[in-house]
Amino acid sequence: MRAGAAGDQNGQMSQSLSARLRLRPGPVDFGDYDPDATPGFSGGKKKGKQALDQLEGPLADLQERLYAESREGGERRILLVLQGMDTSGKGGIIKHCVGLLDPQGVTLASFRAPSRSEKRHDFLWRIEKERPAAGMVGIFDRSHYEDVLIARVRSLAPEAEIERRYVAINDFERRLTDGGTAIIKCFLHISKAAQGERLLARLTDPTKRWKYNPGDVDERVLWPDYRRAYQLALERCHTSVAPWYVVPSDHKWYRNWAITTLLTEHLSALGPKWPKVDFDIAEEIARVKAS
Amino acid sequence: MRAGAAGDQNGQMSQSLSARLRLRPGPVDFGDYDPDATPGFSGGKKKGKQALDQLEGPLADLQERLYAESREGGERRILLVLQGMDTSGKGGIIKHCVGLLDPQGVTLASFRAPSRSEKRHDFLWRIEKERPAAGMVGIFDRSHYEDVLIARVRSLAPEAEIERRYVAINDFERRLTDGGTAIIKCFLHISKAAQGERLLARLTDPTKRWKYNPGDVDERVLWPDYRRAYQLALERCHTSVAPWYVVPSDHKWYRNWAITTLLTEHLSALGPKWPKVDFDIAEEIARVKAS
Repeated sequence: MRAGAAGDQNGQMSQSLSARLRLRPGPVDFGDYDPDATPGFSGGKKKGKQALDQLEGPLADLQERLYAESREGGERRILLVLQGMDTSGKGGIIKHCVGLLDPQGVTLASFRAPSRSEKRHDFLWRIEKERPAAGMVGIFDRSHYEDVLIARVRSLAPEAEIERRYVAINDFERRLTDGGTAIIKCFLHISKAAQGERLLARLTDPTKRWKYNPGDVDERVLWPDYRRAYQLALERCHTSVAPWYVVPSDHKWYRNWAITTLLTEHLSALGPKWPKVDFDIAEEIARVKAS
Repeated sequence: MRAGAAGDQNGQMSQSLSARLRLRPGPVDFGDYDPDATPGFSGGKKKGKQALDQLEGPLADLQERLYAESREGGERRILLVLQGMDTSGKGGIIKHCVGLLDPQGVTLASFRAPSRSEKRHDFLWRIEKERPAAGMVGIFDRSHYEDVLIARVRSLAPEAEIERRYVAINDFERRLTDGGTAIIKCFLHISKAAQGERLLARLTDPTKRWKYNPGDVDERVLWPDYRRAYQLALERCHTSVAPWYVVPSDHKWYRNWAITTLLTEHLSALGPKWPKVDFDIAEEIARVKAS
């Protein structure tokens, strides 16, 4: 990933967004990250939506190359991990960012509370099954991180088991990156006030009400505990091969632009090429014409 | 599905497109269907693309209602089956039509040649596993119909087994519709000349060449056999609960508009409603404000 100075495209970026949003090493304190900020983007909502639209073409081209490459044996693929508090925007990102991609090259996995049968396996069992295939862009809507987040806050596992899981996650992610997967782990950082507004919006708008769950408030009152659990998880699982990105998410338009930009930058860094074909082109043209 | 006169929206439709494109009963002869026609649409390519864009809003609204409904116990769902000769546009439809939908409410299954393990099961075994869940729009890129198409043309199964499969397919599809699935089976009807042009386009454009497979010409020379197999399959499996639609597909813009319109009409006929919630709204607003 390019971390230095980049072209001053639209006056928006002086370095790659990946470099800007990458979690800083050392102990993590979300107080150091402003959820209301728009790093790397100088305009407002309107300009942000236009900039998102402009990413569709380049993104589609890169995605098709990655997919094509895999048809000729390419092993590379993308895994986008979305984590954040309720209402932080996982659904919105899938609709507005993932929606820009060709569905043929996307696999989407949502990890809700594990089923009874899933609970009888190691926490990574159900995750392994949803790993993206070569050439694909895989999206995790929540992920294996739930097993060190809600598991810690709600004491669903003993402390020693949580500790074991941080290590297991780092091993798992290294295995993925060794196998050709570029992992983009995004923490959607919202303020507690923004969450309150969004929950109220769900309750007052009849077309959004179905998204509301009274249990959301039960989790909300545990905000400080979740915050601590997230800080710890990001700190323990921020590795050179699979770093975390902290995406300020109080502005939905910024969050959508930022995630799409991270995806585009990572695909661009892979530099997928149209594959060489193993047939004689002139000969095949003649065959089609004769048929 | 509304089959009578509809509003003369944009001067394009005097009856529902579903009624217009529905396969006519009795023996099937594709000679009666023009692949170059644009039934139900009076404009050309530019107007067709605009009309497609205009469907995005209504389609997204209907899809979200269907999805929401399922969260409160709704059983209804959509299954769009795409069948057609190579280059008829299954991939293009997934990119341009399915791409209009929210990925959270879509499941996509592509059925290539069955694996060794799949072959050890009944032909519907791998299909059953990909049935869309309640609230979802499922897309089949090829389907169980391959087992009465290439299976017939290439003699992969004896005649008696093919006969058994027509019956099994009708039983299977009735079970799906009984369970709340609206099935939209689309035959993408292209001319042999159009296929020739598209194969040549793939060979001459370096960004499309990876889509070309020399085996495509081997299938192309069997065009009359495939045509017969398709005619027979459509005839035998055209039922009142799961009818076939013949979509003229020599014009890509028309094909995309037509499929999206069929999808919109079927969703509209279901008439999904925002679900009633089972909590006290005022009470929850107070809880959020207090938290």
